[in-house]
Amino acid sequence: MSNRQVRLASRPDGIPQAENFAIVEVPEPEPHDGQILVRNHFLSVEPAMRGWVSTVANYAQPVGIGEVMRSFAAGEVIDSRHPDFAPGDRVVGMFGWQTHAAVGSAAITRKVTEDDVPLSAALHVLGLTGLTAYFGLLDIGQPEAGDTVVVSTAAGSVGSFVGQIARIRNCRTVGIAGGPEKAELCRTRFGYDAVIDYKSAADLDTALEAAAPRGVNVYFDNTAGPISDAVLRHLAVGARVVICGTVSQPSWEPWPTGPRVERHLLVKRARMQGFVVLDFEHRFDEAIVQLGHWVRQERLRYEEEILDGIEQAPGAIARLYRGENMGKLLIRV
Amino acid sequence: MSNRQVRLASRPDGIPQAENFAIVEVPEPEPHDGQILVRNHFLSVEPAMRGWVSTVANYAQPVGIGEVMRSFAAGEVIDSRHPDFAPGDRVVGMFGWQTHAAVGSAAITRKVTEDDVPLSAALHVLGLTGLTAYFGLLDIGQPEAGDTVVVSTAAGSVGSFVGQIARIRNCRTVGIAGGPEKAELCRTRFGYDAVIDYKSAADLDTALEAAAPRGVNVYFDNTAGPISDAVLRHLAVGARVVICGTVSQPSWEPWPTGPRVERHLLVKRARMQGFVVLDFEHRFDEAIVQLGHWVRQERLRYEEEILDGIEQAPGAIARLYRGENMGKLLIRV
Repeated sequence: MSNRQVRLASRPDGIPQAENFAIVEVPEPEPHDGQILVRNHFLSVEPAMRGWVSTVANYAQPVGIGEVMRSFAAGEVIDSRHPDFAPGDRVVGMFGWQTHAAVGSAAITRKVTEDDVPLSAALHVLGLTGLTAYFGLLDIGQPEAGDTVVVSTAAGSVGSFVGQIARIRNCRTVGIAGGPEKAELCRTRFGYDAVIDYKSAADLDTALEAAAPRGVNVYFDNTAGPISDAVLRHLAVGARVVICGTVSQPSWEPWPTGPRVERHLLVKRARMQGFVVLDFEHRFDEAIVQLGHWVRQERLRYEEEILDGIEQAPGAIARLYRGENMGKLLIRV
Repeated sequence: MSNRQVRLASRPDGIPQAENFAIVEVPEPEPHDGQILVRNHFLSVEPAMRGWVSTVANYAQPVGIGEVMRSFAAGEVIDSRHPDFAPGDRVVGMFGWQTHAAVGSAAITRKVTEDDVPLSAALHVLGLTGLTAYFGLLDIGQPEAGDTVVVSTAAGSVGSFVGQIARIRNCRTVGIAGGPEKAELCRTRFGYDAVIDYKSAADLDTALEAAAPRGVNVYFDNTAGPISDAVLRHLAVGARVVICGTVSQPSWEPWPTGPRVERHLLVKRARMQGFVVLDFEHRFDEAIVQLGHWVRQERLRYEEEILDGIEQAPGAIARLYRGENMGKLLIRV
C-alpha cells in the first residue's frame, strides 16, 4: 500500500493557495515501537492552517517546506505497536494531510469512543471547533441567561456551535452571516433568534439596533474587520468581546488598520480577549462529554461539507477563507 | 460674601478651551434643610471633564450651557443643616468650579478624616486618581509579583500611582513619559525600574524591547494612540491591557483609526479592558485606608501642580491635555 501525502511546496504570501502544495506518493510507513499506523478517513481544513504555514510569529513552529501539511485527521488504527491501541480503534490526532500516518502518543489526541456519533464529528463538534466554541463562549465570553450574544461567521464551523450553546444557556442569539443560504441555515438549522445577512443589509448599524435593542452583552468574533467595527458600536455596559479569529484580514503584513477600540471599551467598561483553545487542553475531556450529550439530544447540530479525495486538500484553505463552505470543511480520503 | 463661579458658556469642539467658560459672581448660597455650605479650598481638573461638557454619549449627563462646571472639590464646612456635618469639617465632593457650594448628601463624597495628610490629597491620591490607579491596576490589570508593568503617562496623576502600586506589589515597572523633566520625575520620585522618554526615544520598539525583554504582562494605558500601538507589539502571553483614558485623541468625531488589535490579543491570549472607577464605589473606603497607609509610609508619593485663583480654571483642561502639568492639576480658590 502506498501513502498519498500533501506537502508544503512553497511559502504562501497571505492565504495558502493550491499551488503552495504538492501531492506525492510514498510507501506506507511502518510503525515503530510505541507507534500506531492510522488509515485516515477524514482530514481537517481550518483557518489556523494559514498560521501554520506562515513564518510570522505564531503559537506553533511553521510547517517546513517539503514537509507533510500539519492537520488534524480522524481514522482507524490498522497496525499498532502501542499498548493502548489495537487495530479497529478509531482515533483522532495530528496525523497530517495524508492517507496513512505512523504516529506516537504525542500526535494522538484521543481514542474516539462515541460509537453512536459519526467519526467525522471528532474533527468538529467533538473536536477543536466544538471545543473552541465551548471554551471561547463559556469561559471567555461568560454569557448569562438573558444576555444578547452576537456571533460573526454565525453559520461557520465554530460560530454555529457558539450560537447554539448560547441558546442552550438561554441567551438571545444574533447571527451575522454572508448570503441568503447561510442566513437561512442560521435561522432554520442553528436556531438563532435573529439573523443579519451582512451582504444584503443596507446598514449594519440599523440591523444591529433592531436585532440587539438592549445592546450586545457578548460578541464572539471570527472576522477582525468591518463587521466587528459595527458590533463594537452596539456593546452593552460590561460587554465581553471574544477574539477567536481574523478571517476578514487576508494579511497582517502590512498591518491593517481600523477604528480604534479604546473608547468603546472605556465607555462600556467592556473587555476584548483573545484565546487559544489548546490552553484549555486539561479540560477537553469534560467538554467533549458535555458536547456529546448536546449532540445526542439534537440541541447541538452540525453541518459538514465533505470534499472527496486528497487532491481536494491543496485548494481547501483558500476555499475556507473565501467563505464558500457551508459547515465544517473536511477532506474524505 | 459672594460666590465666584465658572460656568460653561459654550459647547467645545474637542478639548474644552478657556473661551468655553465664563466667570460670574453671584451671592453666596444658603444651605437648605439637609444641606451644608462648603467653602471650597481646592478645585479639581481632570481629563474626564472633556466628556462632561460633551453631548456625545458618555457615562454622565453633560453639563448644560450656563451651568456651573461640574467638578470635584475639597473644602471646609462653614454652615450646616445636615445632621452628619458641622462647621469645621473637611469634606470632598462634587461641589463644582466655584468658591462656595450649598450641597446635600448626593454631592458629598466623604468627610475627610485623614488629619495628618494635606486636604488636597483628597482630590488625588486619596481621591479619584488614587482610586483609579488602585482599582484599574489591581482589579483590572491583576499584576502578579515579578510581572512587568508598563504605564503610559507614567508621571501623570493616575500613572504615577499605578507605577508605585505596581512596585509595592513587587512588579518590574516601566514608565513611559514625555520629556526629560517627566522622565526624571519617574526615575527619582516614582521609582520606576526603567523609564522611556517617548519624545526623545529614537524608536519606541527598541526602547520597549530593552525595558521589557520578557514582554509586557500588564499595560496601563491613558493614551489610546501610538504609544499603545507600540506597547501592544510587546505583550507577553496572557497580558492584561487596562484602558483608563484616551488623552492622545483630541476628538472621536471623526472616529480615529489605528492598527487593529485583534491579532495581538489572539496570538498572546491577551485581554484589553476598560473600566470606570465609579463602578467600584462600594469599595472606595477600603481602598482609601490602604492608599493612606502607603502615603504615610512614603511608599506612595504624589506631585501637585497648584494654580492660584479661580480665573485659572477655564484654561486648565486644555493645559492638562497639552500634557504640560507635572502631577495632579489643582486650582486653589
